[in-house]
Amino acid sequence: MISIGIIGGSGYTAGELLRLLVNHPQAQLDFVYSTTNAGSPVASVHEDLYGSIDINFTDTVNPNVDVVFLCLGHGKSISFLEANYFSATTRIIDLGNDFRLTADANFNGKVFVYGLPELNRDQIKTAQYIANPGCFATAIQLALLPLAKNSLLADTIHVNATTGSTGAGVQPSATSHHPWRTNNMSHYKAFGHQHLGEIVQSLQQVQQGFDEEVLFIPNRGDFTRGIFATLYTKLTTDFNEVVALYNAYYASEPFVRVTTDSISLKLAIQTNNCFISLEQKGKYLLITSVIDNLVKGASGQAIENMNLMFGLEETTGLKLKPAGF
Amino acid sequence: MISIGIIGGSGYTAGELLRLLVNHPQAQLDFVYSTTNAGSPVASVHEDLYGSIDINFTDTVNPNVDVVFLCLGHGKSISFLEANYFSATTRIIDLGNDFRLTADANFNGKVFVYGLPELNRDQIKTAQYIANPGCFATAIQLALLPLAKNSLLADTIHVNATTGSTGAGVQPSATSHHPWRTNNMSHYKAFGHQHLGEIVQSLQQVQQGFDEEVLFIPNRGDFTRGIFATLYTKLTTDFNEVVALYNAYYASEPFVRVTTDSISLKLAIQTNNCFISLEQKGKYLLITSVIDNLVKGASGQAIENMNLMFGLEETTGLKLKPAGF
Amino acid sequence: MISIGIIGGSGYTAGELLRLLVNHPQAQLDFVYSTTNAGSPVASVHEDLYGSIDINFTDTVNPNVDVVFLCLGHGKSISFLEANYFSATTRIIDLGNDFRLTADANFNGKVFVYGLPELNRDQIKTAQYIANPGCFATAIQLALLPLAKNSLLADTIHVNATTGSTGAGVQPSATSHHPWRTNNMSHYKAFGHQHLGEIVQSLQQVQQGFDEEVLFIPNRGDFTRGIFATLYTKLTTDFNEVVALYNAYYASEPFVRVTTDSISLKLAIQTNNCFISLEQKGKYLLITSVIDNLVKGASGQAIENMNLMFGLEETTGLKLKPAGF
Amino acid sequence: MISIGIIGGSGYTAGELLRLLVNHPQAQLDFVYSTTNAGSPVASVHEDLYGSIDINFTDTVNPNVDVVFLCLGHGKSISFLEANYFSATTRIIDLGNDFRLTADANFNGKVFVYGLPELNRDQIKTAQYIANPGCFATAIQLALLPLAKNSLLADTIHVNATTGSTGAGVQPSATSHHPWRTNNMSHYKAFGHQHLGEIVQSLQQVQQGFDEEVLFIPNRGDFTRGIFATLYTKLTTDFNEVVALYNAYYASEPFVRVTTDSISLKLAIQTNNCFISLEQKGKYLLITSVIDNLVKGASGQAIENMNLMFGLEETTGLKLKPAGF
Repeated sequence: MISIGIIGGSGYTAGELLRLLVNHPQAQLDFVYSTTNAGSPVASVHEDLYGSIDINFTDTVNPNVDVVFLCLGHGKSISFLEANYFSATTRIIDLGNDFRLTADANFNGKVFVYGLPELNRDQIKTAQYIANPGCFATAIQLALLPLAKNSLLADTIHVNATTGSTGAGVQPSATSHHPWRTNNMSHYKAFGHQHLGEIVQSLQQVQQGFDEEVLFIPNRGDFTRGIFATLYTKLTTDFNEVVALYNAYYASEPFVRVTTDSISLKLAIQTNNCFISLEQKGKYLLITSVIDNLVKGASGQAIENMNLMFGLEETTGLKLKPAGF
Repeated sequence: MISIGIIGGSGYTAGELLRLLVNHPQAQLDFVYSTTNAGSPVASVHEDLYGSIDINFTDTVNPNVDVVFLCLGHGKSISFLEANYFSATTRIIDLGNDFRLTADANFNGKVFVYGLPELNRDQIKTAQYIANPGCFATAIQLALLPLAKNSLLADTIHVNATTGSTGAGVQPSATSHHPWRTNNMSHYKAFGHQHLGEIVQSLQQVQQGFDEEVLFIPNRGDFTRGIFATLYTKLTTDFNEVVALYNAYYASEPFVRVTTDSISLKLAIQTNNCFISLEQKGKYLLITSVIDNLVKGASGQAIENMNLMFGLEETTGLKLKPAGF
Repeated sequence: MISIGIIGGSGYTAGELLRLLVNHPQAQLDFVYSTTNAGSPVASVHEDLYGSIDINFTDTVNPNVDVVFLCLGHGKSISFLEANYFSATTRIIDLGNDFRLTADANFNGKVFVYGLPELNRDQIKTAQYIANPGCFATAIQLALLPLAKNSLLADTIHVNATTGSTGAGVQPSATSHHPWRTNNMSHYKAFGHQHLGEIVQSLQQVQQGFDEEVLFIPNRGDFTRGIFATLYTKLTTDFNEVVALYNAYYASEPFVRVTTDSISLKLAIQTNNCFISLEQKGKYLLITSVIDNLVKGASGQAIENMNLMFGLEETTGLKLKPAGF
Repeated sequence: MISIGIIGGSGYTAGELLRLLVNHPQAQLDFVYSTTNAGSPVASVHEDLYGSIDINFTDTVNPNVDVVFLCLGHGKSISFLEANYFSATTRIIDLGNDFRLTADANFNGKVFVYGLPELNRDQIKTAQYIANPGCFATAIQLALLPLAKNSLLADTIHVNATTGSTGAGVQPSATSHHPWRTNNMSHYKAFGHQHLGEIVQSLQQVQQGFDEEVLFIPNRGDFTRGIFATLYTKLTTDFNEVVALYNAYYASEPFVRVTTDSISLKLAIQTNNCFISLEQKGKYLLITSVIDNLVKGASGQAIENMNLMFGLEETTGLKLKPAGF
């Protein structure tokens, strides 16, 4: 059994980790750290786990657990790790964005591997520290990696992606206030979203010299879960060849499904799956990519990384019933 | 023209008043008071009014306006009126719950009339001070008044009503956080909601000695606007007579529509209307009542009261396009 | 392995069965029967299963499977069984309402057991034919069984319950048309819903001579999944004793969670759980009961019954990640 | 008073026309034609108008009304006009797409003017026949016309726009079935939507020789009303000059509001307004445009055209309360 600690235990990604871990056959929850809720039952915050989990939040960490998941707000993992010690063998998976860029990946001697299994599976297996990808970044990279791998990205990439409200976290705010968000749509950080850095970094990793523009408009959607992303760029080779390349790239992947049929967001919800649809539109390739932002876009992928690091079957604990409706 | 001041200008009921008043042919907006937003354009908060209203919030009041609407949180009207002076002829319409009960209605010599036109139209016409009814209270009273008027309430009254999230106000909170509220349903203050007081008071006003239980479960619904209320009690007379009594009671009412067909919440949304459906279920009378909580349940009814107080046609500025969908 | 056939394979309960069965360790899908889709891939209808299931719909049945699930419209199971033959050992689980009432339970020598494990577990274990309970009926019975078991139902029972739109099935209709249903609420079949029969039958099974009225208003909610039910009746004993009786009744139940905290619908969504909250309101007992209509209210409970019939651990394949949000 | 007939009276655009016309001070409803509902009260279909409108649907037309609105499915206006006669002075406003393109605009001697007031106001004033623009087309044209007017469209135009479910009409279908549509997102007709024709035609009308690509992805959104459109293209002049050109183009327009602040869909809902936001993103101009698809995108604009044709103030009957929430 893998002993597990969770830091930032009252947030959405921590809650989703807990929902997954209570059914994971190799997981042994050791502690759930939350300074604001220390002493209260975990199920008093994550109420759907009442009856499934009976431990309390703590404000102390066990430095000897096998793995720690950091579920803190972006930018807070560094300060947490500066203030807290873990054993030399404890693995750390950071769900924030502190260590995703190569420039940030070496932190006091801890070297973080970017935890996108479809890109870095072999490095993940031997890594001790993982920077778990962002949700938009996961959907967009999975949509583009087969092209990049074959050096076929040769023009501007246009991306429009819409996220559910859980992406904004558990803290109430004006743009996640129900009266405002419901029946509404808006965009934010257009052309300047912070996930662009990790996206471009990964594309450059597999396509030498990649330097095309990625024009990305993120939208706030009127749903709670999911990323619905459409991307297009000029076709640089025959469409059927492109389909073949995607099928080849993802042939052995347990969580990526490639199709030329139309898809909708809900296919991926409540699962660790990414559905990718490919269509030719004249001289353009149109790619649609959907994931659940809290599963493949966060906590599910974090467990996928854990499975790889501990030599488990990658899908352990991640064969999830799709939401359906 | 009626010169108007609004207190608590950044909240939902104030916003709805403004949306209505900009098209009201006799309304002249004098000031919109908001201590937190003073100096900023009103349209910077109520963004849909950009291009329709070009004044700024103020932190001073003009004591000589013809009418002031108090759109403060419940319990805050008293302290506001203690701290601020208005002219002897200024009319005041309080949208809070400070003065709705007879025991609270005389405040420093100001006598507040309960502003439900279908109950107190004549008193409203000559009142200087109005306590505007609560949203649940409006839907429930309109559903019961014709029975009470005819002394036909003779058994326990069972009420189940669901409100939209705007009912909880503009301030973000856990139960109006979009990820939580969406696709969800819950109840609160079951059997003990604060509107019971004004409901019972009105029933007693028209049915001498009324003392039946009113068992009321309020629910939080997964929509932004509206009150959907179902009520039942034992039939104490022939159903057709009941229908006739409702039709008679509301025959001249501009905003109440009585039917024996089934109805749904959206019929009333974005309007000042109340739809009431009557059905016989064996020995029970089942009443369904729907309103828009921000219009007939708050700001629309406040303007209806203003119209009555100033001798205008009651529907002035309140002939609104229904939402439809 | 249990070989399985599904009849009526393109509907919502069949889809949900398939989502559950693809991860069930003892399930071996033999055929999915759908006359309208015969020859097409199952994943062309249940698109989220693309990549998880690769068989086609058939228009023939294998009469020798171990178990058949009937997922036909209500009233259609009888005609299907009249026209189709299954082996003498094939077990049949009917998700429709054809055989739920005792008067209907003996069909050509096949005797159907009412498949509510919390009521009839022992009979289910040895049954060959199961009538799977209705969704509303499941939520309401679980809310009342401990009272009935202790003969504590002694006054009128008031029930108000709201269902998600999947409850109306896959066939588009006016009241499940998105523009109409969204932001809306309505009731239907008030005081006369067809599930009342099975509810009263079960209460009478455990409380001899039960003959109180059950006044039930079913509502159409603005969400896709779930049943949110509130019930109240007069307390006939001390509240703390009631809580103790519920805790005792459900102490060993894997899927029922009793609490005195407030609950909301989403706690149960995407799971086979039923959450029950108990509150005292003066002389009344207020019970809140929430389930997922497609899981505990249909397909999950059907698999729970299968597990019991085949001697498996009852929770096999039913340890599901809650939706969360 | 203007006597009015409506054809196709049971659909969504007809319903919205009726909601607007019942409060229009110059409108006199003569007949509402619906073959499927002839003889039934109009309010039996458009239930929110119960109490506001008391005529029945007819299956005959009065050929002498002042104006007829055609609210038929796309492609059905031609056959209707072939089978039905109207007086020589009757004006016709077609809400379908039969006559929007110049190539289709001359129908048996009736010459249809494209009814976008911000483009063709003078021609509309003297027109007898109007082709009312499409909803997507309205939002997109209003976003681009000031650039085209100044011949500043000089590169590919990228458009991503999401529509509410009312855009798909009153007829239930798989993609407007509530269980499917809710919490979902999808695209359709990417790069090939039928509104592209009228969009390009209008751009060419004001920018001689315009031949840039317009790459348009239409999405199905999880809301009932509205079009949320984002567009970008390369800036060909200084951003501040662009803002000035938009402000100048729309300075006298009663329904278009230009801003450099961020906007969200709901600003325009339930109104005839179009909000346009302008932002510079490096070398790109990002334009956001929001309308209500049933008002400015259909029935509101149709009445705007009627007002212009009959010499009324353009905003008559169209000063609508915004939805707010």
